[in-house]
Amino acid sequence: MFYYFNGRIVPAEEAKITVRDIAVLRGFGIFDFFRTSRGKPFLMDDYLARFVNSAKLMGLSFPHGEDELGEIVLETLRANKLPEAGIRLVLTGGDSPNAFLPAEPNFAILIEPLHWPDEDWLTNGVKLISYPYQREFSRIKTIHYIPAIMLQEKAKAAGAVDVLYHHNGEIREVTRSNFFLVKDGRISTPNDHILFGVTRKKAIELARMFWPVEERAVLFGEIAEADECFMTGTTKKITPVVAIDGKVIGNGKPGPVTNRLMKIFEEFEAGY
Amino acid sequence: MFYYFNGRIVPAEEAKITVRDIAVLRGFGIFDFFRTSRGKPFLMDDYLARFVNSAKLMGLSFPHGEDELGEIVLETLRANKLPEAGIRLVLTGGDSPNAFLPAEPNFAILIEPLHWPDEDWLTNGVKLISYPYQREFSRIKTIHYIPAIMLQEKAKAAGAVDVLYHHNGEIREVTRSNFFLVKDGRISTPNDHILFGVTRKKAIELARMFWPVEERAVLFGEIAEADECFMTGTTKKITPVVAIDGKVIGNGKPGPVTNRLMKIFEEFEAGY
Repeated sequence: MFYYFNGRIVPAEEAKITVRDIAVLRGFGIFDFFRTSRGKPFLMDDYLARFVNSAKLMGLSFPHGEDELGEIVLETLRANKLPEAGIRLVLTGGDSPNAFLPAEPNFAILIEPLHWPDEDWLTNGVKLISYPYQREFSRIKTIHYIPAIMLQEKAKAAGAVDVLYHHNGEIREVTRSNFFLVKDGRISTPNDHILFGVTRKKAIELARMFWPVEERAVLFGEIAEADECFMTGTTKKITPVVAIDGKVIGNGKPGPVTNRLMKIFEEFEAGY
Repeated sequence: MFYYFNGRIVPAEEAKITVRDIAVLRGFGIFDFFRTSRGKPFLMDDYLARFVNSAKLMGLSFPHGEDELGEIVLETLRANKLPEAGIRLVLTGGDSPNAFLPAEPNFAILIEPLHWPDEDWLTNGVKLISYPYQREFSRIKTIHYIPAIMLQEKAKAAGAVDVLYHHNGEIREVTRSNFFLVKDGRISTPNDHILFGVTRKKAIELARMFWPVEERAVLFGEIAEADECFMTGTTKKITPVVAIDGKVIGNGKPGPVTNRLMKIFEEFEAGY
């Protein structure tokens, strides 16, 4: 595999940073992740805009505009000759003299084989557990995933595949996906203290052609009354959620709105 | 400078990890930091015990027991021939195949020049601002310092040197220090959802020989009534706090209990 690293395309094993980088010492960095679809980056502009904005909000200097960054991504992809790939942009806080405050960032583009969810997730839906937590700086896609990682064993032990965050009685998001709920033909999704997913945005846009969609504060208690739930993400696309904390949603199977939106999304991607 | 890195003492610039390490991709790692006093590690056993415990709670495999780790620290210190040094232990999540779940950790010991607080901090005390936040996994010294770093500019703009965290009306800690309050000759310090500092522990032990010390839930509102406040840390030792959010504590100068405890601590260190 070849990565882009601080201005050059290099073999992946040569993309190394000093342990003094505050990404390592202080968990200080941002990233973004997207994928190809039939060999071409899918919805890339939205991801690049979010990444450049994360850098700005984090106070990290980033030398490339979005257009230039897009060119670098394409060049890095070409060097790897993969039919499909995950593309991970990472910007670190850099080698800090006082091991605390940001310095000159390191920038890398990692190219990865794609890990799709199990086919079973899409046909039968997934189970989640819930956990009280919300992102601290939700407009920034920071590298802070300690809670997400620490909670995976708990999820697994409960027969669930991931964790739904909630805070003060309101639903937030799944650790790496956005969350939606369907009730009486209306679709609702949280609109605050979440990472605004690119797949979320596209799902809302597509869904609005067929159903009313509300971006609003969604109460955790609404899950008990929901007809359907689903989550959205870069590789998860539209994934049905059929149980949370062991409580079945609707009839425990992917519902008609979710199934139809999955098809609509596939059609959109096929025509992209 | 020479670092210890995965089994060998190497020039600092050779201690490098791949950008695929989940410390870089997911902010997943632990650390600890202590210092020498007259060339010898100060209170090392407590720091090593905390580090080994952090690794365990984080689910990271760590090959050394505390005694062996102590020997490695001494060997790394000797290689650097510094009169005084900061010693930073770092354990990362490793190069993860799926860029998410922990793998084989990288372990480094960094030796650093010591940055002491300004002399003025000790003679005149410091100002803090406050911010609603608490650590997620407080028993683990994770590398997650994004909030601490992001808040430094806000503190600076307010003429303060650091930030006091509080949550649901209770005081927690300063970003890299523990917090104490003195009222009517009694010393109080929070005892939950904080990182349990080694200097905090020693300060409590020394203070108890002269004053009553309570480890308890301390309300944020108690600051308004406090006679004195101070914070404790590895390089800050006992540092007086004289104002929070622009509100002066007591008469705005380091108080008699704080000043005496500072001397007691210096005497303890001199005799260590």
